[in-house]
Amino acid sequence: MLPAIGRRPILTVTARPGQRSETIRRANLSAIVRELHLRGPMSRSDLVEHTGLTRSGIRAVLNDLVSYDLAHEERATSQGAPGRPSPLVRPHAAGATVLALEIAVDSLAVALVGLGGEIVDSIRVDRSWGRFSLEETVADLVDLTRQVQARRGTHDALVGIGVSIVAIVRRSDGFVRLAPNLGWRDVALGERLREGLQTRLPISVANDADLGALAEQRRGAAIGANHVLYIAGEVGVGGGLIVDGHPLTGVAGYGGEVGHFPVNPAGGVCRCGSVGCWETEVGESALLVRAGRQADGGRAAVDAVLRDASAGSPVALNALSNVGRWLGVGLAGLVNVLNPELVVLGGLFGRIHPYAGDALRAELERLTLEASRELVRIVPATLGVDASLLGAAELAFEPLLSDPAAWAPGRALGERPAGASA
Amino acid sequence: MLPAIGRRPILTVTARPGQRSETIRRANLSAIVRELHLRGPMSRSDLVEHTGLTRSGIRAVLNDLVSYDLAHEERATSQGAPGRPSPLVRPHAAGATVLALEIAVDSLAVALVGLGGEIVDSIRVDRSWGRFSLEETVADLVDLTRQVQARRGTHDALVGIGVSIVAIVRRSDGFVRLAPNLGWRDVALGERLREGLQTRLPISVANDADLGALAEQRRGAAIGANHVLYIAGEVGVGGGLIVDGHPLTGVAGYGGEVGHFPVNPAGGVCRCGSVGCWETEVGESALLVRAGRQADGGRAAVDAVLRDASAGSPVALNALSNVGRWLGVGLAGLVNVLNPELVVLGGLFGRIHPYAGDALRAELERLTLEASRELVRIVPATLGVDASLLGAAELAFEPLLSDPAAWAPGRALGERPAGASA
Repeated sequence: MLPAIGRRPILTVTARPGQRSETIRRANLSAIVRELHLRGPMSRSDLVEHTGLTRSGIRAVLNDLVSYDLAHEERATSQGAPGRPSPLVRPHAAGATVLALEIAVDSLAVALVGLGGEIVDSIRVDRSWGRFSLEETVADLVDLTRQVQARRGTHDALVGIGVSIVAIVRRSDGFVRLAPNLGWRDVALGERLREGLQTRLPISVANDADLGALAEQRRGAAIGANHVLYIAGEVGVGGGLIVDGHPLTGVAGYGGEVGHFPVNPAGGVCRCGSVGCWETEVGESALLVRAGRQADGGRAAVDAVLRDASAGSPVALNALSNVGRWLGVGLAGLVNVLNPELVVLGGLFGRIHPYAGDALRAELERLTLEASRELVRIVPATLGVDASLLGAAELAFEPLLSDPAAWAPGRALGERPAGASA
Repeated sequence: MLPAIGRRPILTVTARPGQRSETIRRANLSAIVRELHLRGPMSRSDLVEHTGLTRSGIRAVLNDLVSYDLAHEERATSQGAPGRPSPLVRPHAAGATVLALEIAVDSLAVALVGLGGEIVDSIRVDRSWGRFSLEETVADLVDLTRQVQARRGTHDALVGIGVSIVAIVRRSDGFVRLAPNLGWRDVALGERLREGLQTRLPISVANDADLGALAEQRRGAAIGANHVLYIAGEVGVGGGLIVDGHPLTGVAGYGGEVGHFPVNPAGGVCRCGSVGCWETEVGESALLVRAGRQADGGRAAVDAVLRDASAGSPVALNALSNVGRWLGVGLAGLVNVLNPELVVLGGLFGRIHPYAGDALRAELERLTLEASRELVRIVPATLGVDASLLGAAELAFEPLLSDPAAWAPGRALGERPAGASA
């Protein structure tokens, strides 16, 4: 999966008299590695064209990247264009890999993701929801991680670990404040994972919807968009907001909790303790109950509802349309407040979009201001079930992308690189 | 009014070899003028300390500013500290003034504001609401402007015009998309004001709540805060959001329309055409009707309700508490989504805060996530009825603050300075 990214120019730095050349070297390494990671293989000529660096400048950067094992070059076959073919530069996936872990309400997943964003190996296991303690969860994740690592051997240079969780989480240390749908409150997930995995690698933990938004912006439906509202439904409902190209974090990093947006003063009690939250009207359970099924039927039950709908079942179609209507109510408020250009429907919402989209759009039409609505496109997410897992990988890659030179020397599997912060 | 601003460092630039000295001179002029405008008079010593420029560097900048008539220096009286007293530098209000215009639902206002932010003269006239066309409004504003200018004579150097309006407005040209409470839709306000005022000065038009937020951030309750939700009530309800220190504009500049945030699916029809908007539950009319008064009684009727409440009237107290509860419902959603550090209650909401605050806080407690809520402070605005007018002045000052050198030469009242864009 190596899609083209938007027309964002690469930011490189040329030397000013008196500026330290080492600073410039590292900034240019960072810019080129990020570009290869996000855009995939590029020819030397493309790199010259995109960066504004000279041919010799590019050559110096590439020499460093090859020596750090982060890229390799291939002789390009001529494309029929005149002149000597330009060598193709590829990110080297095994030269820098990350572990991405995901704690969803009804599944756990672990993936090894290489530089360039490709999943080199992964495992996902289903769990019944709300039944597992922190200790059981950490033990299961450690077990899955060992399985993936055992299958791959030791030839990947591991540079970090990213963790996605359906929770309100403090980013600085991965402390979980509240995970209503896991029944967790105030648990030191980051610390427990470090002990369980017995690693000194950096571990970054973030909210699943924030990571889904990051992944869709970098590699999915929101490439090139700067004002994005990503909403993802499963058992719970999460959101990730992108404002002027950057994630909206809020003062403490808890921004984007759209699931607990009050939409119905006459609504039901939410697992967060409040009343009439959006989640109580559009979450998986709300859909299943409206379709006459068990609230905790999970993904299989949702699949059954979608099958019924495609066969024309009025009960299933009504349930989906009802959820679409409530999706529209909540989205209307968010569109009026945020004036986004793009709404990306992730998880459950992407899957039900074919059946719920019309009701959603009708409600948006009724409840939003024309000016706020007129530039909005509403699209399903494109990364599917792995969006948050891919976002966790991006989170884990970030320190390497910001300063590849600090990460490259002396690496070994599971060993903390020189210059890396814990 | 010259309050201290937060501990934001002044950004000045020191020369790198090879960098053009004219670029640096202009950047430093901009940094120092902005500082004097926002902080008020400072000693030369303070400027040296805050900027990191040398004494001779500061002297060169101040010489320019004095020659541009933007600042003057006074010999400071000794404060008892040892050493020679440092001269005090003052922004020169008459050296650069702006016209600030405001179109509220039930009043019009015009002010002349000098560099440093002081209102040197102003007029506000009440109007009955929803009864005036664009043409009448422009004619009235032109008339008020002429009155203010006649009183001041011609000794102010006018550098721009800022306009606040209770509308969804396109900033690029001041085109009003929708002003539900004026009954306007798609009118070329910026263009008509230019014709009416017969000026070539830059005219900037923006939404009243966005400007209220700007003013409160620069000179009021939100100084030093980076994640701010400003909500202001009058007949309508507006919002201005500050995310990571910057205004949230959205893709087309219409961000922050919190008044049309659906809070009550069983609510009344809004003037925007939708149903159950926040405005229908917390706007001035909602308060007045709940207090047993005419919906269009205006500011005088609100004053009467507040008097009744202070005398212990149960009807008035219930009405205020009811509005407070609905304020809490809407704020809860916004706090969960935006995770702000500060909520500033402007206009009507600031005035009713003593009576509505408890109900608001109780509802916020009930409906928000603890993590999102725990760092939020809720405070009344401090700039009162003139917040949006002061914000309009800040908008008009912005080009001067960004590049004072481009604005200074050859100025005269009503004449476009050299180098200024229309």
